[in-house]
Amino acid sequence: MLSSEDLSYGMIRFNLKLVLLLLCAAVVIVTLSLWTRCGEVVLANRGRKNSGQAAEWDTGNKKLPNGQDTYGGEVVEHGGNSDLQGYEEIECNINGEHSIGCRKEGGEIYLPFSFLQKYFEVYGKLATYDGYERFEWSHSYSKVYYPKGKYDPRGVFMYFENYNVEVRDRVKCVSATEGVPVSTQWESQGYYYPTQIAQFGLSHYSKNLTEPEPRRTVLEDAESDLLAHWVVPNGAALSRILDPRTGSHVVQFSSPDSVTSGISLKLDHVLDFVLSLNFVFTINSSFTVVLQSREKRDQIFHLHYICSDLLISAQDQYVYHGIGHCEHTQPWRRLTRDLVVDLHKGLAYQNKPKRKLSRSKLKVVGLTFRGSGQLDNLTLSTSEHLSQFYDAAQWLVLHQDASTGGWPNPVRRRVAPGMADLEPGWYSAMGQGHALSVLARAYHHSGGDTSYLHSALAGLRPFEVASSAGGVLARFLGHIPWYEEYPTQPASFVLNGFIYALLGLYDLGVVAPSASQQATQLFRQGMVSLKQLLLLYDTGSGTTYDLRHFMLGIAPNLARWDYHATHVNQLLLLATIDHDPLLTATAERWIGYMSGKKAPHN
Amino acid sequence: MLSSEDLSYGMIRFNLKLVLLLLCAAVVIVTLSLWTRCGEVVLANRGRKNSGQAAEWDTGNKKLPNGQDTYGGEVVEHGGNSDLQGYEEIECNINGEHSIGCRKEGGEIYLPFSFLQKYFEVYGKLATYDGYERFEWSHSYSKVYYPKGKYDPRGVFMYFENYNVEVRDRVKCVSATEGVPVSTQWESQGYYYPTQIAQFGLSHYSKNLTEPEPRRTVLEDAESDLLAHWVVPNGAALSRILDPRTGSHVVQFSSPDSVTSGISLKLDHVLDFVLSLNFVFTINSSFTVVLQSREKRDQIFHLHYICSDLLISAQDQYVYHGIGHCEHTQPWRRLTRDLVVDLHKGLAYQNKPKRKLSRSKLKVVGLTFRGSGQLDNLTLSTSEHLSQFYDAAQWLVLHQDASTGGWPNPVRRRVAPGMADLEPGWYSAMGQGHALSVLARAYHHSGGDTSYLHSALAGLRPFEVASSAGGVLARFLGHIPWYEEYPTQPASFVLNGFIYALLGLYDLGVVAPSASQQATQLFRQGMVSLKQLLLLYDTGSGTTYDLRHFMLGIAPNLARWDYHATHVNQLLLLATIDHDPLLTATAERWIGYMSGKKAPHN
Repeated sequence: MLSSEDLSYGMIRFNLKLVLLLLCAAVVIVTLSLWTRCGEVVLANRGRKNSGQAAEWDTGNKKLPNGQDTYGGEVVEHGGNSDLQGYEEIECNINGEHSIGCRKEGGEIYLPFSFLQKYFEVYGKLATYDGYERFEWSHSYSKVYYPKGKYDPRGVFMYFENYNVEVRDRVKCVSATEGVPVSTQWESQGYYYPTQIAQFGLSHYSKNLTEPEPRRTVLEDAESDLLAHWVVPNGAALSRILDPRTGSHVVQFSSPDSVTSGISLKLDHVLDFVLSLNFVFTINSSFTVVLQSREKRDQIFHLHYICSDLLISAQDQYVYHGIGHCEHTQPWRRLTRDLVVDLHKGLAYQNKPKRKLSRSKLKVVGLTFRGSGQLDNLTLSTSEHLSQFYDAAQWLVLHQDASTGGWPNPVRRRVAPGMADLEPGWYSAMGQGHALSVLARAYHHSGGDTSYLHSALAGLRPFEVASSAGGVLARFLGHIPWYEEYPTQPASFVLNGFIYALLGLYDLGVVAPSASQQATQLFRQGMVSLKQLLLLYDTGSGTTYDLRHFMLGIAPNLARWDYHATHVNQLLLLATIDHDPLLTATAERWIGYMSGKKAPHN
Repeated sequence: MLSSEDLSYGMIRFNLKLVLLLLCAAVVIVTLSLWTRCGEVVLANRGRKNSGQAAEWDTGNKKLPNGQDTYGGEVVEHGGNSDLQGYEEIECNINGEHSIGCRKEGGEIYLPFSFLQKYFEVYGKLATYDGYERFEWSHSYSKVYYPKGKYDPRGVFMYFENYNVEVRDRVKCVSATEGVPVSTQWESQGYYYPTQIAQFGLSHYSKNLTEPEPRRTVLEDAESDLLAHWVVPNGAALSRILDPRTGSHVVQFSSPDSVTSGISLKLDHVLDFVLSLNFVFTINSSFTVVLQSREKRDQIFHLHYICSDLLISAQDQYVYHGIGHCEHTQPWRRLTRDLVVDLHKGLAYQNKPKRKLSRSKLKVVGLTFRGSGQLDNLTLSTSEHLSQFYDAAQWLVLHQDASTGGWPNPVRRRVAPGMADLEPGWYSAMGQGHALSVLARAYHHSGGDTSYLHSALAGLRPFEVASSAGGVLARFLGHIPWYEEYPTQPASFVLNGFIYALLGLYDLGVVAPSASQQATQLFRQGMVSLKQLLLLYDTGSGTTYDLRHFMLGIAPNLARWDYHATHVNQLLLLATIDHDPLLTATAERWIGYMSGKKAPHN
C-alpha cells in the first residue's frame, strides 16, 4: 500500500451553530387608546420632533424598558374567532402615492404583510408548532456565527465548515485533472477562479476538523488477493505486483480496446460516495463508476473518467470528466472524486434536475477499468476532506505567477458602471488572502513543506503593488492603504474582501512568524486602515458592500443581509485576535440592525 | 417726520409651497395568492438571495412598472362591513424577540400600525374627506422646497420666509435694546446667538419680499396737532417742536414721577401689532403699551419698555423689556416691537400658556409715556420686516470681534461625547455664513452702505483659520477643507451648517464681486469639498447629520427627517447655481428616501 496523506491527527470540532430559542407563549398587546374619529386625528407621531402638528398621541403599547414586550404569560386565543366585532375595511394611502386595502378594528389600523414585505423588504412565514399557528416576522435572513474562542490559523477558517463550494450552481464541475472547482460565475465556459479554489480548500480543511471521522472502505490495496473480486474477461489481464518505484504492492491491469467490457468490479455500496485511488495509466486509459438509483433500479448512471483534457461533458446518463493526459512514465497520481457531485454536475450540464438523486437515494454498483496501468488504494469514503484540501493547496502552488506572486483571474470583470473593467489576469486581494490562508494551513499541516511557504511568501508581493500597477493596493484619498478584492479604477474598497485578505495575512504571520514578518506588517497596516474606515460602511440600519458611492458619487451599494452578516462574522472573528472595543461595539450594533434596530437620529 | 428706512422697493413674491395632491379614489389590492397551511409556509421572501429555503413565492400584489399601484378606478367599500368572513386573531412573533397580536384573513396577515410606527418610525393618521375615512401613511414628515428659479443673493434666503425665529420656544425674548432674539438653547439665562440672530434677519428680509405690503397706522408724527389725542395730566407737558438735530418736527414730552398716570393715548386698535417709534429719552423714562383681550375685557396686559439693561421680566399681567440706558444726549433711536411676541414671551417667562392670546384675539387699547424725552413716527403696523432685518444686520456689525472677524458664541457647547467641549467664544462657520448672507443683503439693500461690506469681508477671516486654532476650517483626513458649524476636536463635519456657510460665501461673492474675490474662492473650494464628501452622508435610506461615526468610531448620527429635508432643500438650491448633475441626482435620490425608497442592495 502506498502511503497517503496522514489521516490521523488531532481533530478540533467546533459546533458554531446557534441554538435558536423558539418562543412558545404569546402576548396580546392591548390597545386601550382613546380614539377620536372627527376630521383628522394623528395616530402615530412618536419620535417626531419639531412637528407643527398639535395633536400627537401614543397608541399606548405596553413596552418594557429593555425594549422587549412581555411574553410568556398570556396566550392569544387562536383560530375559531372569525367574526371579530367592529372589524372593517379601510383604505390606506401610502405616502400620497398609492393605496392599499387595510383593516380597522377599534383604535387600531392593520396593514397587510404583502405590502409591508415589499415596502420594507422584511420576511415572514406561517409556522405551526405547539398546537397552534403563528406568523414569524424576520427583519433579515442571515446568520451570525459567534466565535467560541480565539481564532487560530491552524484551525477552522471562519465558519467555512458550513460551506459546500463545489455544489454551488456557479461551479461547473470539479476538475478531475486538478481536483479543484471550475467557476462559471463571470464566464459561462468555465475558468479556474483562485478565490473559489481557495474557499474549496478552506471548506474541506475546516470540515475535516469538524466532521466525524469518515467511514472508509478499501476496495483494493493489492496487499491481498482476497480483497476485490475483479472480473477479468478474456484478452484482459490483472495482477498484483510489487511496484519498484515505491516498494509497495499495486494492481497492474491491461484491457485493450477489443475487450469492451474492461476489467470490472461489481459493487453494492451505499452512503459513501467519495472515491479515491492512486494510479498510473497509459495513454487513452479510463475508468468508469456506475451509480444506480435505489428507488428506480432502471435509473443507471455512468461516470467516465478519461485520459483527456476535457473538463466535463455529459449526455443522458453518461458523464465524462477528463483526468488529463496519461503516460505510463508519469509519477503516481492520486484522484479523489465525490461521485454524487460529479453526477449532479453532469446532470446540471444537461440542465436536468438533480434534486431527486440525493446521496441517500443512490448506490455504487460497479467500477470498470479500460486500457492499462497500475492502481492502488482504491477506496470509497464518506469524505476525503484533506485530500481535497491538498488538491487546492497544490493547485495554488502550481498556478501562481512566478514573477508577480499573483494568482491571476482569467476573466474580464465589470464591478460597477463608472469603473474601468478589470482585464483578464487581474489579482484579487481576497483571492491572494484566501490563498495565504490555504497555504499557511498546508504548511502547518504538512509539517513544514516549504513549497507551500514559498508560494505563500511570494503571494504577498501584490499587496505592495498599487492596484493601478497590477497589484491589489489602493489608498483611500491617496493615503489610507486598502487591499482591493477588485483592483478597480477608481478603487472600490469592498469591505468583506479586504477583511478576508487581512485574515490570510494574519494566518501566514502566525503559522510562519519568522519567515513572514512582511505578512504581519501588512496585517497590522491593514488593521489600522480597517479601524479608520470601518464606520464609512455603517448606514445606521445596515452596511454598504463597498465605497462606490463615495468614489463615483452614486447611490450606495447596500450589502444584502448575507454580506452584512459576513461583515459581522468577520468583525467578531477579528475581535478575538484584536481587543480594540471598536470591533466588538461595531459588530454588536450591526447585529442589532439585523433585527430592525437602528442607529439613533438627532 | 424723520426719514426712516426706505419702505418702497420691488417686492418679489415666491410661493414655494407645494400643492399637495389629495388622492380621491382608492384601489383594492386583491391578494389572490394560493395558501398552504401545513407546517411552515414561506409567505414572503422577495429580494432574498442565496436563501437555503426551497419554497419561495410571491403573494402577488399588482404593481405597475413605475412602482405605483393602480388607483383612481375602483373604490374600496368603506365602513359598515364589520363582520368580514374568515378574519381571525393570530400571534406575530417579531424576530424571535417578542410577540404582538395580528389578524389573519385568508392568505393575508395584517399587522397593527401601533407596532409598525414604533418599529419603523413611520407616521400615520386617519383623515376623513370626500365622504369617507382613510388612513394616511407617511414615511417622513418634512417638506421639500423646489426652487422656482436660480438662487439670487439679493432675494429670499432659502425658504426662510416661512421661519418665525422669534416665536420659537428656545427664544427667550427679542431684546428691546438690540432688537434681536435672545437664545436659551444651550444656556437657560439667555445669550446672543449669532446664528439665530442672522436667521432672524434673513427670515424678516425674506418675509418682506414675499408678504403683502403691511398696513401702517401712524399714531403720531408731530407734523400736525390733530393726529393723536394725548391725555396730558396736570404737572405733565407735551409739545410738538422742530428738532434742531434733524430738522424734523417731533413730540417733546415731560411727565415727572409725581404724575403716575403719565402722558397717555387711548387706542382701540386691532390686527396690527408691530409698534415702531423714534425716540430720545432722558434717564429712567419709559413707555407702556396696554393690550386687552377682545373676548375677556377684564384680561388686560401691560407691556413696559423701560430704560434699563434688563432683558425681560414679567409678573402676572405686567411684562418688562429693557430698552437699555437712556440719556438725552444720545442720538435718535428707532425701536420696533412685535407686541404679541413681547406679550407671549412675558407669559412664557412665567410658564403661562399663550395659545389663547393669538393676534386675532387682542387689541391695543393704550399707550403711556413717563419721564421725559422726544418721540416721532409712532406707528402700528402689520409688520416691519425691514426694520427687524436691519436690527439684525446692525447687531452683526456692532458685535463682531474686530481682531478675528468672528461672531463669538458665548456658551459652552458639547457636540458629542468623545469630542472636546467648545469653550465659550467659539465661531461657527454656519453663523459666519449666515452673517455674510445678512450683511450681503444689507449692503445690497442699503444701496452700498460700506459698514455692512467691511463687516462681511472681515467675517471671512475665520474661514482661513484652522478650527484647532480658533477658526472654522477643518480638513477631512488632513486634506479636504470643510467649514465647521461646530469647530470641534476632532472635527464633526456637520453637513447642513457647511452648506449654509457656502451660501453665505456665495451671497457675498455675488453682491460684492470685486471686493470679495476671497469669498468666491472660499465658496468654490467648499463646493469641491462638498461634492467630494457628499456621498459619505448617504445611508441609502436617509442621511447622516455629520460624520461623527467616522471621526469617533461610533454609531452614525442619523439626520431626523427635518434635517434630511434641509439637506435636500440645500442641494436643490445649490443645483440652481451649479449644474453638476451630482447635486440634482443626489437630491432626487434623497427625496425618494422620504417616501420609503431605498438605494439598491447587491
